[in-house]
Amino acid sequence: MPRLADNAQPLPPELSRAAAEALDAADPLAGFRAAFDLPAGVIYLDGNSLGPPPRATAARLADVVGREWGKDLIRSWNANGWMDAPLRVGGKIAALIGARPTEVTVADSTTVNLFKLAAGALSLRPGRSILLTPADNFPTDLYALQGLTALLPDVELRVVPPDDLLAGVDGATAAVVLTQVHYKTSFRWDLAEVTAAAHARGALTLFDLSHSAGALAIDLGAADADLAVGCGYKYLNGGPGAPAYAFVAERHQRAIRSPVTGWMGHAAPFDFAPRYAPSRDIRALVSGTPGVLGLAALETALDLQLEAAPALVEAKGLALAELFIRLVEARCAGHGLSLLGPREPARRGLHVSFAHAHGYALVQALIARGVIGDFRAPDAARFGFSPLFLRYADVWDAVEILREVLETRAYEAAEFRDRAAVT
Amino acid sequence: MPRLADNAQPLPPELSRAAAEALDAADPLAGFRAAFDLPAGVIYLDGNSLGPPPRATAARLADVVGREWGKDLIRSWNANGWMDAPLRVGGKIAALIGARPTEVTVADSTTVNLFKLAAGALSLRPGRSILLTPADNFPTDLYALQGLTALLPDVELRVVPPDDLLAGVDGATAAVVLTQVHYKTSFRWDLAEVTAAAHARGALTLFDLSHSAGALAIDLGAADADLAVGCGYKYLNGGPGAPAYAFVAERHQRAIRSPVTGWMGHAAPFDFAPRYAPSRDIRALVSGTPGVLGLAALETALDLQLEAAPALVEAKGLALAELFIRLVEARCAGHGLSLLGPREPARRGLHVSFAHAHGYALVQALIARGVIGDFRAPDAARFGFSPLFLRYADVWDAVEILREVLETRAYEAAEFRDRAAVT
Repeated sequence: MPRLADNAQPLPPELSRAAAEALDAADPLAGFRAAFDLPAGVIYLDGNSLGPPPRATAARLADVVGREWGKDLIRSWNANGWMDAPLRVGGKIAALIGARPTEVTVADSTTVNLFKLAAGALSLRPGRSILLTPADNFPTDLYALQGLTALLPDVELRVVPPDDLLAGVDGATAAVVLTQVHYKTSFRWDLAEVTAAAHARGALTLFDLSHSAGALAIDLGAADADLAVGCGYKYLNGGPGAPAYAFVAERHQRAIRSPVTGWMGHAAPFDFAPRYAPSRDIRALVSGTPGVLGLAALETALDLQLEAAPALVEAKGLALAELFIRLVEARCAGHGLSLLGPREPARRGLHVSFAHAHGYALVQALIARGVIGDFRAPDAARFGFSPLFLRYADVWDAVEILREVLETRAYEAAEFRDRAAVT
Repeated sequence: MPRLADNAQPLPPELSRAAAEALDAADPLAGFRAAFDLPAGVIYLDGNSLGPPPRATAARLADVVGREWGKDLIRSWNANGWMDAPLRVGGKIAALIGARPTEVTVADSTTVNLFKLAAGALSLRPGRSILLTPADNFPTDLYALQGLTALLPDVELRVVPPDDLLAGVDGATAAVVLTQVHYKTSFRWDLAEVTAAAHARGALTLFDLSHSAGALAIDLGAADADLAVGCGYKYLNGGPGAPAYAFVAERHQRAIRSPVTGWMGHAAPFDFAPRYAPSRDIRALVSGTPGVLGLAALETALDLQLEAAPALVEAKGLALAELFIRLVEARCAGHGLSLLGPREPARRGLHVSFAHAHGYALVQALIARGVIGDFRAPDAARFGFSPLFLRYADVWDAVEILREVLETRAYEAAEFRDRAAVT
């Protein structure tokens, strides 16, 4: 009966629905489920791609539209804290990722922030010309780096096998850029280990936390991390296409230069001076006017998330994922499922992918039966275990439905619909 | 009794409240006011900075959150059209700016889009290294260009006096970059004239329409314009920090390269291929995952706006502005107000700025009396005339309140509060 993490509930040796219900009864996070209004008949295992709305979100948005925007109008920029929202909400994210409140701002999309901070890393390491990244980095992160290096002929994007990454850091490396948790295999990098390897050669780290923030107990401070980005719509439940965030360690904030410069990052935005002068703090990472509706939804979700200790969230999530893996191995054996990524919980994030020859149809058949996961080419059925709204009994029920689909080969009848999932 | 535009109502020679009411009675756009829920006791002359919410917006957002996000969850990316939203909503903006539906997408902020398209202009004009812009271009637009050129040492941002702009285009100019309507003086560039001058030397044009779209009857096609950006939260009423848009003329879409590349702009976003391959259409300008809440609010406002013919909108707006100017000149004479920018309506946008030695306090005193304009340093009191919800009688009433503030010198007692306005 291995312990999953310091605060995890150990899984019982006998896996039954009653045992799962007992875990729910003892779950310190069980009360959070009532803060969500999930549809009946659905087991939502895709919160790692799009988190569901907390119940409070609708009312908050109605207030933003009806009172703040509708009644206070332009005055809301000050009267209702819109101007401060990027840094205020950033400060709330900081509490989830082990950063200081002044080290994070909400801004733009993950892609845009990655572009800004990759260029920013180069500005912090003049004379170094390599951005180093693992070949299996999240594709859109690779795209952002490819876009930047296509613009800068003197900069090389060096793409290496993941196993060669740490040894690949050299004196020309400006930054190591990677996603903490792999979107498909769930492989988890050790941020402290990567940062130590980078720093040993004078390089910086730039982490994408999109697939881990709100799920794992991240500690950027303890890792001595330099730069990070992440999205707001996965485990953070901030809403579809929620605004993203950027982290810059305080020691880099005066020197870093983002190339995407707009009035909100200016040291004196209302002077309307003709020359850009960057704010000497995290605000310099804000470029254009922030989207207030998206910020409001994100902040509402964060206020809920902040009531749960990140260590408890990680422990429960890993236990849910581990329960899923064990149940699939025990009850769906012989049906051609094979686990992707590492087996040890400490090396994983909170989603689980199984390869299957009919992965796409399998996911469609599950969705038709209310178990919502997603498919990732070429053959991965992916399931995410958001700790705030999922129950251990949901995991049991999901596996039973999976078992039925496999045993009846119901997936063979599943229609091949357009792929509905978004990372 | 000069005509303001082909479709404008001429102003009567005698300016009285009864005359203003008669104009309202004959106003073909008068019915649009009921589509907004403006607060009582307010005359909102800041729709040029933040348009108010249409009544339909709150219900639309409630549906997006409660049903689409809350019940359909991840499936909404296909089932509720979220994936297509950037291009679908872009197509609606296209109808307002004289573009083809496939030439506009919603994406990111104006700043980020300007960065992308300025770099894109350079990609379309290899061997040319100058971005040419007037010195009084909107400051944040200058910042975006400064950020790009700081990153690209071979590219020069050439800033010239506005009067020298057209003659300043030469064989090294990649693009002329300007804002159609000046945020303070309301000076309006002739887009066709600028484009002709640019094209005569082989250069492109990149226009920022933030201060004119939804206000003027823009025709990018007739102007033969190349590239454009704009924001969604001013005259388009899309909400605070609404997502922005980018226009790329069809003839440039295959060749242009944006440096900010993300999965949504990939030719096959769900292949998760390691190498970026741009979509060969306007979608390549979308980078990260779009903010669905902001898109929904913007689309709701556009659906309303599209019911009004742009020529009627421009004509009414210019008539409101002209009425304001004439009333101020007639009824507030001798109080030190002087009009900024050109006098002829055809050379203006829909906002009007008057310089005044106590401009800041004057605006504060007006706001305290329900007339909401804004202040722009060093001395401009600025008032915007959004045609969809303002009445001619509102203009009369606003000027009467202005007159009272000036005659009683009430502005001397106005508290110096923090500046609450955002461009």
